[in-house]
Amino acid sequence: MRAVDIIAKKRDRQALTTEEIEFFIQGLTRDEVPDYQVAAWAMAVLLNGMDPRETADLTMAMVRSGQTLNLDAVAPIVVDKHSTGGVGDKTTLAVVPMVAAAGLPVAKMSGRGLGFSGGTLDKLESIPGYDVSLDIDRFLDVVRRAGVVVAGQTADLAPADGRLYALRDVTATVPSIPLIASSIMSKKIASGAHAMVLDVKVGRGAFMTTLEDARELALRMVDIGQRVGRRVTAVLSGMDQPLGLAVGNALEVMEAIHTLQGKGPADFYEHCLLIGGEMLLLAGLAEDPEAARTTLADAVASGAALERFRAWIVAQGGDPRVTEDEGLFPRALVVHEVPAPRSGVIAALDAREVGETSVMLGAGRARKGDPVDLAVGIVLHAKIGDRLAAGQPLLAIHAQNADDARAAAERLLAAYRWSDADLEPPPLVYDVLRG
Amino acid sequence: MRAVDIIAKKRDRQALTTEEIEFFIQGLTRDEVPDYQVAAWAMAVLLNGMDPRETADLTMAMVRSGQTLNLDAVAPIVVDKHSTGGVGDKTTLAVVPMVAAAGLPVAKMSGRGLGFSGGTLDKLESIPGYDVSLDIDRFLDVVRRAGVVVAGQTADLAPADGRLYALRDVTATVPSIPLIASSIMSKKIASGAHAMVLDVKVGRGAFMTTLEDARELALRMVDIGQRVGRRVTAVLSGMDQPLGLAVGNALEVMEAIHTLQGKGPADFYEHCLLIGGEMLLLAGLAEDPEAARTTLADAVASGAALERFRAWIVAQGGDPRVTEDEGLFPRALVVHEVPAPRSGVIAALDAREVGETSVMLGAGRARKGDPVDLAVGIVLHAKIGDRLAAGQPLLAIHAQNADDARAAAERLLAAYRWSDADLEPPPLVYDVLRG
Repeated sequence: MRAVDIIAKKRDRQALTTEEIEFFIQGLTRDEVPDYQVAAWAMAVLLNGMDPRETADLTMAMVRSGQTLNLDAVAPIVVDKHSTGGVGDKTTLAVVPMVAAAGLPVAKMSGRGLGFSGGTLDKLESIPGYDVSLDIDRFLDVVRRAGVVVAGQTADLAPADGRLYALRDVTATVPSIPLIASSIMSKKIASGAHAMVLDVKVGRGAFMTTLEDARELALRMVDIGQRVGRRVTAVLSGMDQPLGLAVGNALEVMEAIHTLQGKGPADFYEHCLLIGGEMLLLAGLAEDPEAARTTLADAVASGAALERFRAWIVAQGGDPRVTEDEGLFPRALVVHEVPAPRSGVIAALDAREVGETSVMLGAGRARKGDPVDLAVGIVLHAKIGDRLAAGQPLLAIHAQNADDARAAAERLLAAYRWSDADLEPPPLVYDVLRG
Repeated sequence: MRAVDIIAKKRDRQALTTEEIEFFIQGLTRDEVPDYQVAAWAMAVLLNGMDPRETADLTMAMVRSGQTLNLDAVAPIVVDKHSTGGVGDKTTLAVVPMVAAAGLPVAKMSGRGLGFSGGTLDKLESIPGYDVSLDIDRFLDVVRRAGVVVAGQTADLAPADGRLYALRDVTATVPSIPLIASSIMSKKIASGAHAMVLDVKVGRGAFMTTLEDARELALRMVDIGQRVGRRVTAVLSGMDQPLGLAVGNALEVMEAIHTLQGKGPADFYEHCLLIGGEMLLLAGLAEDPEAARTTLADAVASGAALERFRAWIVAQGGDPRVTEDEGLFPRALVVHEVPAPRSGVIAALDAREVGETSVMLGAGRARKGDPVDLAVGIVLHAKIGDRLAAGQPLLAIHAQNADDARAAAERLLAAYRWSDADLEPPPLVYDVLRG
């Protein structure tokens, strides 16, 4: 078998066999297939596609390229949760303690933010003392003790995916449904999940900007799950405006805590009930979606979810008093309130622009490895469909100096569109696809 | 400007600007654009194409990547000739002295054979003493003295093409019309030609196996010529069966000499009159195709073409007595005559199989840098449309041992199809496209 023949086959729109995909990914992992062949192959895959069987084969070949975690000892069924990334998406922070309080332990590996999309690890590091770097033993120990663990990658999971992604990033071959689907699924499978809820974001502030693309990605991941024996539920959720009100690391953790205290933004709370509910359904811990919602709402109302959050933070070395004293979080030097420039109804609030502005303030990173400012960000006071009078509070910018705040305000005001007539907010959820 | 954005643009089926192509090719030449980006770009170009303007820009960017030869001092108009490669294609060897005898000097850089297709330099090296490695000064000196020079590449012409081709070879991105057209044209333009006749071979024994592909390549090269101020004539010629009767290095030189002596195979002589005639027309040395044919036929009949051949060989250090004494050529140890296995008319004679068999005998190379055996090869006694009785001479195999000869005979006999009814030979020429 030769790599060049495998590239030619994909160039000519033929399906690759299981053996050919295994050969290519093994060669890539062992550095036997050079970068230029991988790059040409990735472009051929992007332009000519891969069928569902090929995509599942690619996923499992990448899983086999490195270590895999076994979570069988943690719970009979371990359910993971993954978001394709959006603006203000702090769902993991609130939903994980909610489902854990409902009896479903979660052992989750998360990532850092890049570009307009934030990362769970960055957010968690705004909690003083919280340790994201755990080895496998401590990772398993934390989930056994606290029912929750969220850390960086603890093992050499799917290294082929790492190498392939790095090449895709510099060869314009990222936006390929089979390559994105197999990348996400290979890491989730390697990290030991038996089942998973995939939150596929769609809209201006997501990587998938059209519902059609998002649905295709979701269906492909559900299909991979069916082919490789993992139950997958995909949620298609809206990301035209930010999720919740807070965008920025510490600001988002605070919002998650408010939510666990029963006083979070309605859209974000609703999203947590949906994602968490699907996790309980996959684990067999709820009869139906309505029962799952009730279980989770009860866990919030009783304080059990907040307690679980505190236990988790303590188990990873963090200071649990952040749930009572927001002064413990890093705080920005300037909080600049921006009033509504006119009376009317917010008709659009471009999530992408909000995300990019938060990067500009320092909350995100343009390049891998850049430092992030945990304190800065944006807190919205109103969202699409809300009616305001001119001069009413529109949003607050948390910045390190007045110049940054002014520049951010100007950019953010341009991200709104206004209407005189009332209008409905965009849907929070488009569809739920259960595998 | 960033290479990754240029790749993304081509991935998205957009045309690249002149500046983007120049940036990419300059980066490739200076090793600033890494192999993996070039490979992804080449696959995107192969699958999404390039429009004629882009292809001309790519051609000239590759010309500018290295040295260029100025042949203005050699003649007011220097006409080059290029074949896309076929089996038994020794046209250069005969046509160049023919047109030189008619007053058109030719300064030509040729290449080595690869795979089933032979190379002019290998063939010429079967003439004792002939030197293919000339520096620029000697190259120009030979053409001034003899009116003809045929050598290997004397300067660093279109190095970007060299680097790109090497990558295309290992990334399955060779078969792209814009990439093939710009590769051929960039080398011809860099080597100083003002005008050129491109012999685009089509059929089983050519790189273009369909008339449609060959026509597209020919049109694209004629178009490049028009856009960059070079007159180009493209000839679409048949390569379903070998050209002429001889296949193999020394054997083909002997056939070229026979042709210059007025006793060559009819199809090959006809092809030389056509290609040479188009060269004279481009140079303004003939009024019309008929006049050009007559001029060339006269040069053969008078012996002037043969004399020019001898002067050229002498000027490059070769032994001109090869035109009188074939014993001076390397000879194979075994000449194995193969009779017709049945009575009938030859209906097909697969050029590709003949070419591959000659490689098997040692006349060609499977890999760059392999040595070739100048003596071995195949001499056909009959071609498509000829009627033979069983047992009549069909072909002769020139091999270094009896085993090779037997294996070649078996393979060659399988390359024939026979008919009882009379049939026409396939056309020698499909079309002539004058730019």
